Amino acid sequence: MNRPEDYQQALDHAERLLGQPLVLPLGNGEPPVGEDFRRLATVHTFGDSWSRGGLDDRSRALVSVTIAATLGTHEPLRGQLRIALNSGVTKEEIVELFIHLEAYAGAARAFDSYQVALAVFAEE
Amino acid sequence: MNRPEDYQQALDHAERLLGQPLVLPLGNGEPPVGEDFRRLATVHTFGDSWSRGGLDDRSRALVSVTIAATLGTHEPLRGQLRIALNSGVTKEEIVELFIHLEAYAGAARAFDSYQVALAVFAEE
Amino acid sequence: MNRPEDYQQALDHAERLLGQPLVLPLGNGEPPVGEDFRRLATVHTFGDSWSRGGLDDRSRALVSVTIAATLGTHEPLRGQLRIALNSGVTKEEIVELFIHLEAYAGAARAFDSYQVALAVFAEE
Amino acid sequence: MNRPEDYQQALDHAERLLGQPLVLPLGNGEPPVGEDFRRLATVHTFGDSWSRGGLDDRSRALVSVTIAATLGTHEPLRGQLRIALNSGVTKEEIVELFIHLEAYAGAARAFDSYQVALAVFAEE
Amino acid sequence: MNRPEDYQQALDHAERLLGQPLVLPLGNGEPPVGEDFRRLATVHTFGDSWSRGGLDDRSRALVSVTIAATLGTHEPLRGQLRIALNSGVTKEEIVELFIHLEAYAGAARAFDSYQVALAVFAEE
Amino acid sequence: MNRPEDYQQALDHAERLLGQPLVLPLGNGEPPVGEDFRRLATVHTFGDSWSRGGLDDRSRALVSVTIAATLGTHEPLRGQLRIALNSGVTKEEIVELFIHLEAYAGAARAFDSYQVALAVFAEE
Repeated sequence: MNRPEDYQQALDHAERLLGQPLVLPLGNGEPPVGEDFRRLATVHTFGDSWSRGGLDDRSRALVSVTIAATLGTHEPLRGQLRIALNSGVTKEEIVELFIHLEAYAGAARAFDSYQVALAVFAEE
Repeated sequence: MNRPEDYQQALDHAERLLGQPLVLPLGNGEPPVGEDFRRLATVHTFGDSWSRGGLDDRSRALVSVTIAATLGTHEPLRGQLRIALNSGVTKEEIVELFIHLEAYAGAARAFDSYQVALAVFAEE
Repeated sequence: MNRPEDYQQALDHAERLLGQPLVLPLGNGEPPVGEDFRRLATVHTFGDSWSRGGLDDRSRALVSVTIAATLGTHEPLRGQLRIALNSGVTKEEIVELFIHLEAYAGAARAFDSYQVALAVFAEE
Repeated sequence: MNRPEDYQQALDHAERLLGQPLVLPLGNGEPPVGEDFRRLATVHTFGDSWSRGGLDDRSRALVSVTIAATLGTHEPLRGQLRIALNSGVTKEEIVELFIHLEAYAGAARAFDSYQVALAVFAEE
Repeated sequence: MNRPEDYQQALDHAERLLGQPLVLPLGNGEPPVGEDFRRLATVHTFGDSWSRGGLDDRSRALVSVTIAATLGTHEPLRGQLRIALNSGVTKEEIVELFIHLEAYAGAARAFDSYQVALAVFAEE
Repeated sequence: MNRPEDYQQALDHAERLLGQPLVLPLGNGEPPVGEDFRRLATVHTFGDSWSRGGLDDRSRALVSVTIAATLGTHEPLRGQLRIALNSGVTKEEIVELFIHLEAYAGAARAFDSYQVALAVFAEE
């Protein structure tokens, strides 16, 4: 469960989805084992789930954005929104997703997470 | 904001998605205003969001299942899973959604919500 | 921080709010320290917060029901609903609270927690 | 479900509660459908819930602050705190609400959300 | 990322921790891909995290119980409590964990999750 | 439940754990009752839980970090990480905790909370 090729394949898959390399440098004062945290999280998501058949990238992108928006995890939501836009989801569809989120997860969470969408919309 | 035709349209839309009427009778000892709770929740979801163009039913179904599974709201998840299966999402795709959920929202939440999927899979 | 009179005052306050004694017997196989868990939780809530002036019981009851309903903690919600009904909050106002919850915390959480309200409405 | 007068009434109600107009301009790069997101969220909250009789504004304000504080949605909490102060809830009562939140939703969430209250207290 | 030996090692590790085999049969009507859901969740938790050095089993058990109790995921919490008791954590220490949880995550969540602890305490 | 010596003992205990005094000055525009919020939260956590025997400080530190990281409460997480490092938990063990969190609470929450760990790692 510690195979370099797994991590490389997961990183390659992430790069295809993001349209740019996924670079996760160690932070200042962070111990070297922090690399294992990045590796396992990357393999579990991009390696073990995104790379599967059975559900198209566009659907996985909608699901990923929904999870991060429902949890209110802002930084991960930012990344998932970039992947969604890069995977053929339109900005309009992302707004529709938030309209659905407002109905089912409420106005408080939807507005809170929508700030991140606004920031990503303004990036390009 | 209290128009009978809005509620009826929302109920009709819910019935199309569920494949059966959405029946929400008042409970024993519940005051009549409980009907307003049902009406507003039904209009906000089925009337104001599901009925919109801009995102296909299949995608909305995936998003709805993901919200309910991420929040861990078991009864609403049950309803969303039935809508998803009735909207052309396959059981296999639902399992893929949970595989994605396990990666991003964790094994604890994914297993907890998957119990509801197992119950719905067994219904037919 | 381990004073018997604090626990007794908190239990007395709980009884006034509930309209019946708060009885929390140790479970089968539960170690005696489980009594400390009950005591501290009871003192922190009924002793240190409910007993304060500064906010009337009715308002505290609405706040308590809202917290438990937003978190989706069903058993504690049941207790808070009983306290609310015993503190002069009407069933109609509780439904209004859930209508507000549906708007801000979403239809999924609101319906999930509303099941507990239905059960409490049916008790009397 | 797309009636201009509903949106206007909801905006008017929001202005009364906030003591100033609710202005939600489209962001840079945000698609026009973003206006629907604002409209629906505004109608669902200010139009369909706040404008109802059955629960006074002061109680609705306490419930709204509690929902946003329990969820940890900082920006929405900021708005709800301003509405509460403008609806006759005192700063002292808001602190009491957080004391109750600390007991029932814990010190971690209560301190995290209290930062927003501190920022709003400092506004005036 | 689809190696039978990884799954077997993870299952073996789970069995050591639980004191009995981890058996996860497919449900009635569940599609075969449900096996992948079990395999990935098992490898990600027991294979990729529990089997690491760097943190002793007792500490990992406390962390696992805390995650499941904080999230309110009842079935996963049940499993983690069994692992904890089997890994040398005493019932008394589990109660102390819930006393800490009551302070930081609040009485509502702590009481809700404590019901699961009571059920596990009564098992033996 | 309003004894000055309880608050002082809790503050002393907090200072021992943090390695520096816990200073919580009133904010600009905050009413004096804000002092009660700080006092009760401090007594409930440092006074009523941390000061107990029954679970060593190192274990309580791991539990506290886990609660704050699972909830995604960033400021409280920062404080708990400082206490953990001051109580003999190593940076490497904190990373292991996050690896466990990634598996059970998911990559989205784990990455979101890990940002706070990175900031604390960089402090020294």
